[in-house]
Amino acid sequence: MKMEKEILEIIEGIKPLDKEALAAATERQAKLAKPPRSLGKLEDIAIQLAGITGKVKNDLDRRRIIVLCADNGIIEEGVSCTPRSVTAAQAVNMTLRKTGMSAMAKAFGDDVQVVDMGIADPYESEDIVTYPIAKGTKNFLKEDAMTREQCVEAILIGAKLAKHAKEQHIDIIGVGEMGIGNTSSSAAVLSVLTGLDIPTVTGRGGGLTDDAFENKKRVLEKAIELRKPDKNDPVDVLAKVGGFDLAAMCGVYLGCALHRIPVVIDGIISVVGALCAAKLCPEAGHYMFPSHKSFEPGYMYALKAIDTEMEPFLDLGMRLGEGSGCVPAFEIIAAACYMTNDMASFNEDSGINDDYLTEIREGDKFSV
Amino acid sequence: MKMEKEILEIIEGIKPLDKEALAAATERQAKLAKPPRSLGKLEDIAIQLAGITGKVKNDLDRRRIIVLCADNGIIEEGVSCTPRSVTAAQAVNMTLRKTGMSAMAKAFGDDVQVVDMGIADPYESEDIVTYPIAKGTKNFLKEDAMTREQCVEAILIGAKLAKHAKEQHIDIIGVGEMGIGNTSSSAAVLSVLTGLDIPTVTGRGGGLTDDAFENKKRVLEKAIELRKPDKNDPVDVLAKVGGFDLAAMCGVYLGCALHRIPVVIDGIISVVGALCAAKLCPEAGHYMFPSHKSFEPGYMYALKAIDTEMEPFLDLGMRLGEGSGCVPAFEIIAAACYMTNDMASFNEDSGINDDYLTEIREGDKFSV
Repeated sequence: MKMEKEILEIIEGIKPLDKEALAAATERQAKLAKPPRSLGKLEDIAIQLAGITGKVKNDLDRRRIIVLCADNGIIEEGVSCTPRSVTAAQAVNMTLRKTGMSAMAKAFGDDVQVVDMGIADPYESEDIVTYPIAKGTKNFLKEDAMTREQCVEAILIGAKLAKHAKEQHIDIIGVGEMGIGNTSSSAAVLSVLTGLDIPTVTGRGGGLTDDAFENKKRVLEKAIELRKPDKNDPVDVLAKVGGFDLAAMCGVYLGCALHRIPVVIDGIISVVGALCAAKLCPEAGHYMFPSHKSFEPGYMYALKAIDTEMEPFLDLGMRLGEGSGCVPAFEIIAAACYMTNDMASFNEDSGINDDYLTEIREGDKFSV
Repeated sequence: MKMEKEILEIIEGIKPLDKEALAAATERQAKLAKPPRSLGKLEDIAIQLAGITGKVKNDLDRRRIIVLCADNGIIEEGVSCTPRSVTAAQAVNMTLRKTGMSAMAKAFGDDVQVVDMGIADPYESEDIVTYPIAKGTKNFLKEDAMTREQCVEAILIGAKLAKHAKEQHIDIIGVGEMGIGNTSSSAAVLSVLTGLDIPTVTGRGGGLTDDAFENKKRVLEKAIELRKPDKNDPVDVLAKVGGFDLAAMCGVYLGCALHRIPVVIDGIISVVGALCAAKLCPEAGHYMFPSHKSFEPGYMYALKAIDTEMEPFLDLGMRLGEGSGCVPAFEIIAAACYMTNDMASFNEDSGINDDYLTEIREGDKFSV
């Protein structure tokens, strides 16, 4: 696979998690005054954060949801029941904090960065960051969704958004999207990258009738057959059957790994963007946190394709997108930080000694 | 079953959820600018909250974890690897916000009320609410854990704690505990109330060796055989093989239902307390929210025995107790409130009309 120099530079810049910090964080969890492993995934989260940032104690004071917005030409084929104009309308509503994700983000004090990667309809807002590649992708049943050059450009913009976040001292990023038709592009990319067939990975998105759902699957199968994306080249797959939002997401995940920023995956589109990044650079997966188990059928396949160990910790039956799962997930990850930073240790400040832990550790086969 | 007048008064005072508020809240969820049911359990939570409080829009500004602390005579039989003194030490540490739950609660701004229901060892603290029934229960392998009168007293104290919370305008309560040996009393009560055998519902608690775990199960089986609790009388079961913490928890849940306060279940002990309340008054179950899927094996059995529809929304592999799962759960429930209160509606303030929803609703069989 021939890869563009700018993308190779990012991939080569991504380093493994900090081994010393991982070891120190693991040691700290063992010293905290609690039965070993009794805080389960909160402990795992705290240890992974340490590996990312290099610090045992972390804060999540500055949190940002980056929302990649773009339209999809494939909706000409009737794969969505929602009109295209909703992409622009909801992008604006996010800046006003009136959508599901953004209303929650406002209340929790999270920053929301709405990015126009290719919204087709006109809108009026000065609060949207604009990096449009084009007014939506082409209809990938008839031609490639975008050129390879456009795809690379979108990935590099995503990486730049992560770099800006680092410069602004953002502690954690959540990756969301808005784009009518993007459960179709996501299903197509996921099917090609994993080899799973379209019926297995395709859901109803915003909610399709039975007939429209059958049509969606037929369109996607036919499009993959016609476009012949190279499953070993994620850039080719994104260019032929993907979207500007997916490509930019891929870049955000790569950029987060490069700049050592923890990054949270939302639902089906977000996880497919993450999978593209992990296919380009498996190491990038270690900088990612899953959040919620999406209602969309492809979600768990995509997550396991990134890392078989990944397990979402929220089970809310959500399928809204926007980054809506990242907002509650930030609170859980923050809880892991608070626990790690503020709990007492054995012997030192808890008034409890850890003699009995020797016995627990020996018997603790069931949980380690 | 002959039941004490004071408990009957509470049970008879518990009313169903507010039907009009439930209907209005369901209608509001349908009007918010999102695909129907796309926020999954967040929608269910918001609707249930409305049924409890009678208001469609709710706030969780004032949150309280009530931690029932008590010792258990059954530890004489070697059912725990942790020394009894840890109950008193951790109760004090909770007031200092140094334990796992209380460190997180402090950071999130949640109130923690530590209640001595029967701590055996001496401690020094002016920040513990003291309603001790006795210095720990009796060893229920040899005699009843407590008298029926003591059990009723503990239940009534729990209900009083809920009443005080109402007077103090607390919006939501989480039910936690601290008591070495209380995974044993919980397993015994759960086994009797559900008819499931001890090996099915018993876990290792703080972490036991294989031998000690086998001993724990033998002790509990023998104790139930000897004490012969009446499975149709939760007060009898609590008195014979329960604990002061469990009995008080039962009272807190009943009191929350009586005073219409949403109440969050933590792990195995907390859910067994909830099951006792639901056995006394099934209506009380509608005021409860599960939080996390505890690592303890009995947890899901207890939850399903309260209500087969109940599903925890956090999956963190936690088994710390203290109310530690309630703290992150409060944030998720708050997210449901923020979404409900602040999202735009179709047509009105979103700039999106809902014509296309007719089609979605027809095709949305998969999620309704």
